[in-house]
Amino acid sequence: MRTDVGFKPTGEEEEPIMRTILVTGGHGFLGSRFIHELLIKYPAYQVVAIDEEADNVPELLRPLAACKRYAFHQVDIRNSDVVEQVFEHYEISDVIHFAAKTHVGESMRNPGIFAETNVLGTFHVLDAARKQWMNGPFEMKPRYEGSRFLHISTDQVYGPREQGFADEAMKYDPISPYAASKASSDLMVTGFHESYGMDAVVLQASNVFGPHQQDDKLIPIILQKALSGSIIPVYSGGEDVHDWVSVNDFWRAADTVFHLGDAGETYLAGGNTPLKTLEIVEKICESLDRHFPGNDTYKNQIRFVEPADGAKPPHRFAVSSNKLKQQFDFEAETTFEQGIEETIDWTLSKKRLWEVV
Amino acid sequence: MRTDVGFKPTGEEEEPIMRTILVTGGHGFLGSRFIHELLIKYPAYQVVAIDEEADNVPELLRPLAACKRYAFHQVDIRNSDVVEQVFEHYEISDVIHFAAKTHVGESMRNPGIFAETNVLGTFHVLDAARKQWMNGPFEMKPRYEGSRFLHISTDQVYGPREQGFADEAMKYDPISPYAASKASSDLMVTGFHESYGMDAVVLQASNVFGPHQQDDKLIPIILQKALSGSIIPVYSGGEDVHDWVSVNDFWRAADTVFHLGDAGETYLAGGNTPLKTLEIVEKICESLDRHFPGNDTYKNQIRFVEPADGAKPPHRFAVSSNKLKQQFDFEAETTFEQGIEETIDWTLSKKRLWEVV
Repeated sequence: MRTDVGFKPTGEEEEPIMRTILVTGGHGFLGSRFIHELLIKYPAYQVVAIDEEADNVPELLRPLAACKRYAFHQVDIRNSDVVEQVFEHYEISDVIHFAAKTHVGESMRNPGIFAETNVLGTFHVLDAARKQWMNGPFEMKPRYEGSRFLHISTDQVYGPREQGFADEAMKYDPISPYAASKASSDLMVTGFHESYGMDAVVLQASNVFGPHQQDDKLIPIILQKALSGSIIPVYSGGEDVHDWVSVNDFWRAADTVFHLGDAGETYLAGGNTPLKTLEIVEKICESLDRHFPGNDTYKNQIRFVEPADGAKPPHRFAVSSNKLKQQFDFEAETTFEQGIEETIDWTLSKKRLWEVV
Repeated sequence: MRTDVGFKPTGEEEEPIMRTILVTGGHGFLGSRFIHELLIKYPAYQVVAIDEEADNVPELLRPLAACKRYAFHQVDIRNSDVVEQVFEHYEISDVIHFAAKTHVGESMRNPGIFAETNVLGTFHVLDAARKQWMNGPFEMKPRYEGSRFLHISTDQVYGPREQGFADEAMKYDPISPYAASKASSDLMVTGFHESYGMDAVVLQASNVFGPHQQDDKLIPIILQKALSGSIIPVYSGGEDVHDWVSVNDFWRAADTVFHLGDAGETYLAGGNTPLKTLEIVEKICESLDRHFPGNDTYKNQIRFVEPADGAKPPHRFAVSSNKLKQQFDFEAETTFEQGIEETIDWTLSKKRLWEVV
């Protein structure tokens, strides 16, 4: 770790810093949005972001170049020594752990990197926090009494179900190396709470979407294909079902669980919107027809194709957020349609920028 | 990996080899017993054992020095390259994965080695098997059609319960880094079945005991203390409850699940004997009073002590083996008392040997 970078020197009276929060995977879609919102909402927090990727600074973080409450280091969480150095150097008080490999398809081809990053990497961050915060089992160091570890995970750990909704009491049943790696890491996090009395919580989100999402994820791909006049391929009839939650609501859920969640607990955050992939494509086309009409409906670009490795029976993922609702009156507020419109607006503004440049 | 060692050359007509079985952790208490029994019962099987420990060859494996169907390599499963070399060199057809760090107390002090060995190490063996056996997801190489991965785990993954019995449908709730590492690895194994269609099964045993167990485990410690005339310390009133299963019954369960278990399934094997630690100590003393009487009952050596890090509320672990019973009519046959007598006989014969040497 380079220690010649870090927080900018403060020259004037500032609000005293209450928390120094490590955000792993800070350059990702969720991590960068979280940092952006957190620094705006909480003037007494500072953030140390780490990410294995340093070159492409996310748009939402670029204004932070001059922010005194923000520091970034390029760190691969597979390297436990460097992770521990970050904790010591900044006296990290809390963690929001986003860093993870997330592509299900990539996990099938190369599961090793998922085991190393998502499982062992999570362990490294968790154990570095334990060493920084605790004198021994169930004995926090006084200055870290209020320290918390929030682990960000996925509803995929519960596996698909033909009907009904996954909830937090259900047994994990992962069906991809990605989901298995997240289920494993979730158990390590709650296991550290049980073993050491460390304050750790898990937030499992369904599929998050919205502005600033990476180009290689489903909704950005559909939008790019649609707007560039290309074929929009729909595999296996688009019968797979997933729940979708807007990044706005994801941020609200993460903020809620980080500040109010009970130690050792796991919370599911979804959008109450289980949708077939075909429905998603059609909804996006309809939104585009309204907001950016072409000569013809975008639906004409849809083509049904069979995957190269053969058709698979469709999977249905659906989640209940009742626990968050009951405990904290949390509910997703952005409808899928509103989220898509926001995403389209952002995509169009980016598109216009491209066309100028 | 040294490849100048391996199976001994065969000079005569032998039964054709049907399976080449990798046993990881082959020098452990369970692994060595399994190898011993497997080679006796199945003349068409050969075994490649690996273990990080090569020096202390277990008593049960010493006669195998001349066995043509047995090879051993010193391998640390944290090294994925060497694990893959073993699969390639021997064309491993099946795996029984015992290798794991197992001391709960050690896991509290040094969880890192448990994450690396039990989680990432398991992944290495699992992924090497996938590469050796499969052309792609749900596509076994023809010669490995019948290949199976049996993962040995623990009832500790379910966590303690105040009443009732853990069963395979319950959610994992580990309360130690050891248990968390095993729960994580169990999910990886069943996840590989779901993801790739690999034939993988999990056997979760309760506390196994019997002859040849390592000196630093509970029952051997009690026996040594009792026989040497020392104080037998009982911590926190000996109120913790665990289920115990004899190594005879463990071998029968492993043999059953390896040959008959359904792919992707998890099976719990216990002895239907949830016992308080104090009851165990008393039962051992009573057996010793009968089999190796001294001037006084061994119970007089019992002392109640408080642990150095303070008393903890007692935990109760209890398991149901109904799934094994219903599917395969499997039940533990050795009572706790019979198992203890067998263990005492072995310990006494070892003690006599020591006294001669």
